[in-house]
Formats: sequence, C-alpha cells, structure tokens
Amino acid sequence: MEKLSVLKVGGKVLEDPKESALVLSNFAQLPGLKIMVHGGGKTASQLAKRMDIPVQMIDGRRITDAAMLEIVLMVYGGLMNKSVVALLQARGINAIGLTGADMNVIQAHKRPVGQIDFGFVGDVDGVDAQALQTLLQAGMVPVMAPLTHDGAGQMLNTNADTIASSVAQAMAEQYEVHLVFCFDRPGVLTDPTDDSSLIPQITPAAYAQHKKAGRIAGGMLPKLDNAFAALNQGVHRIYLCQPQAVAQLGQADFVGTTLMPA
Amino acid sequence: MEKLSVLKVGGKVLEDPKESALVLSNFAQLPGLKIMVHGGGKTASQLAKRMDIPVQMIDGRRITDAAMLEIVLMVYGGLMNKSVVALLQARGINAIGLTGADMNVIQAHKRPVGQIDFGFVGDVDGVDAQALQTLLQAGMVPVMAPLTHDGAGQMLNTNADTIASSVAQAMAEQYEVHLVFCFDRPGVLTDPTDDSSLIPQITPAAYAQHKKAGRIAGGMLPKLDNAFAALNQGVHRIYLCQPQAVAQLGQADFVGTTLMPA
Repeated sequence: MEKLSVLKVGGKVLEDPKESALVLSNFAQLPGLKIMVHGGGKTASQLAKRMDIPVQMIDGRRITDAAMLEIVLMVYGGLMNKSVVALLQARGINAIGLTGADMNVIQAHKRPVGQIDFGFVGDVDGVDAQALQTLLQAGMVPVMAPLTHDGAGQMLNTNADTIASSVAQAMAEQYEVHLVFCFDRPGVLTDPTDDSSLIPQITPAAYAQHKKAGRIAGGMLPKLDNAFAALNQGVHRIYLCQPQAVAQLGQADFVGTTLMPA
Repeated sequence: MEKLSVLKVGGKVLEDPKESALVLSNFAQLPGLKIMVHGGGKTASQLAKRMDIPVQMIDGRRITDAAMLEIVLMVYGGLMNKSVVALLQARGINAIGLTGADMNVIQAHKRPVGQIDFGFVGDVDGVDAQALQTLLQAGMVPVMAPLTHDGAGQMLNTNADTIASSVAQAMAEQYEVHLVFCFDRPGVLTDPTDDSSLIPQITPAAYAQHKKAGRIAGGMLPKLDNAFAALNQGVHRIYLCQPQAVAQLGQADFVGTTLMPA
C-alpha cells in the first residue's frame, strides 16, 4: 500500500508566523502523498469580537449561528485556506484548497438540536475518498478547511480534528495512512504545565487509565477519542506533536506521542 | 471543438438572493462544459466599512492594502466562493471553488507602482488551461474567485472581468468558448437610464463610434475593451446580459448584447 500522510495543523500553530512557516516547510518536505487539514478558531473568534458578534463556546465547541457561520466561511474557507495554499505553492507544493462542498468531498448533516443547539454545525456522513485519490494521483496536495455542506445548499462548520480523522479513515482503504495532529504542545502530557511529562507511546488501555486518574483531561479527551477511533478504523499510525517534530515522523529521534493499537 | 461556457457573474447579482438563485439555476441548466467566475465587491466594501477599514476606489478599481487584502480573501475566497459552490452542488453541479493559487491555476504578479499604488493587486501572467481541462473532463465545474497569487506566497486581488477574459482566452485553444458577462443590466445600453436603448449586436467599429460619441462610458469601457480583446484572441462568442437571459444564450429570443467580430 502506498503511504499517505494526513497532517492536521491547529489554528494556534498557523496563527503564529514562525510556527506556521516551520510546519509548512516540514510538511512540504514530507515525502509521498499528503493532505493538510487546518483549523483557525482563534482568528475566527478575533474577527467575531471585532464585529461585535458574540462568541459562544460549550465544552470547547463553537455555537455557530448565521452570523458566526459567515465568520467561519470567511476565516476558514478564505483567509486561512488561501494563505496556506499560496504559502505551500511557494514551497513547490501543488496545493488545492477544499471545503467539504468542493467536489462534494465531505457530505454532512446539520447536527440535530438536543440539549444544546450548536446551530450550523455539521456532523460528517461520508468522505469521497475517490475524489481525493484523483487529486493525489494527479500530483496535487489537498488543503482542507473545517467546513462541510449538507448537499442542499447549506454550508456547515465542522471540527477540524473530526475532518482529519474522517479523511484519514476514508483513505485507509486505499493507502497506508499516517495521521498527524500538529499543535502547540510536544504531544500528550500527563501534566499540561510540564513538557517533560510527555507520553512517547500510548495504548488504549494506558489512555483509559490516565483518563480515569485525571492525568489526561480537557481538550485532549475529544482529540484522543477521535484519534483512537481512527486507529480502530484502519489508520496505520497516529502521531501528536509540535511543528518542529514533523520532520522526524516515524524516526527514532521523533519527539511526540505515537498512538499504539490495543 | 467541444463547447465551453465561461459565465462571469457580478457581485451585485450574487448579492441579491432572487437574482442569485436565478443565475445559479440557469447556469446549472446550461448544457456542456462550464466555468463560473464571480465578483463580490459590494460585500467586500460593506465588510470593510463594518470593520472601519477605509475603502479606496480609483476609476472603479479597488486599492488593496494589507487590511483590504484580508477582506477580499475572506469575502471572495471564503464567503462568496463557498456559498456559490454549496448552492451549485444543491443543483446537481459538481462545483469546485478555486482561486489562482489553487493548483497554481492563475499565475500573476503584483502590479508595479506607477502613478497609483494599487497595493496587493495582481496582473495575470498566465492561466493553466491544462489544469482546468483536467477538472472539466472529470465532470467538475470550476467556480473561480477573483484572486490570484505571485508564486512566492503572496495572494493578490484581481478584477473578476479580467479573470473571466483570461480564462476564456486560455481555454479557446482547446474549446469553442462562449464567454458571458452576467450583470444587473440587460446588456450594453446607449442610455444607461433606458433599458430599451439596448444594443443587441455590436462590432468593434460600432463600439468605437459609440465610445467617441460618449454613448458608452464609465464602467462599461474596461468591460468591453476586455471583452473585445478576448474576441480577438479566439473566444468564439461573447454575450452581456441579465440573469434571466442566461437561459436563452445563442437563441433567437435572447435579450442581451452579442459582441460581433470585426
């Protein structure tokens, strides 16, 4: 099976010019087929504040009303996506920016209103692996914004980690997929204030213990739940690391967390 | 030669929900291969005003400083482009949104500073007709935002009429290209306040006379100069019309202006 790297880059990394340049250069130099998925939440929140649009987050998830949907379309689909595409093109990568609506590559539905009304948030129904494969085989590098659509004309806001996991899982039938979550921490830490508490390798059993003991908590929980689900669905390797570690993925000197199967 | 329709839709049309729905439905029903190019200037100016960013226009052309570049990236590349793509997908069209940076499809350079410094405005160097052809032959419909890049990481703002003409000319080697400028007027008028002054057909000689006599003026001049240049460069037919007339292109009951070769 041919290798495919799916790199998810968090908004905080892309919003820091130095870290952004580092991760884009390391991504550009990754050998083989690759896909980038990016966030951009901080910039979206800043723009909303500037426009006096209230930012509402519940458990780290954004409530997306009509005004906030316009914000994320502009920031994720326009500002962040096109800036990344242009910067990758400058590094010799034939990048192409996509949302789920482009080529109908990610079909989703608006999340049903339960205890919380998340608004225009999309839950992924499926990824068109064939469409992505066509682009990859033509030498292109898809750069995916965290936006989907419902097929009936409505754009939807979708968590970038979820996009990355869904894409990785869909591509795992055709490729040996290496999924990388690149963010502003060295990896999974048992003490978020201490970088030396990095867990180099973690199994589902160890994750369950850390979770029970409260050593892994907060925003890491949905990220790791997502990641282990992808591993169960055939994704070959999953890494969590900082921008500088992307150059050493899978090597002995890699600094980060590698998820291990059960 | 296979027929290819290139439809440029002005911002004013897309910003009116009724006119937008009409032009998207008529475009979706056009037979054969097609490409859409859209504007979005009014929305960009509105967002700029809301963010207290000054809007500077000279002869109808936008001065694009760093703050205005972010605005047009957000509005053209994100809000307008993704909304159009989602609405076309809902009409059964496999739309894919592109700026010039995506697939490096339109190479440009920053306009040199002359008497006026236009800022981050791109003049087109070339269009990758092969890349567009690959998408068309795969059944996709490119939806192009008026943005280009310089290949060195810089996104640039580029007039949508210019994008449409450049794309039409580049595709004319492989296709019988029909270029349509769809806007909020019935076509070329000798009296802009009187829709019955529509010129159904216009040759370069007649255009020169109307221009000399001042019967055609203002924003129509760069649009027609652009269009006649495209006609000279091998574009098969050029039309100017309103959204409702897109359904009758090339038919006897078409209401609009058709440009005729010399």
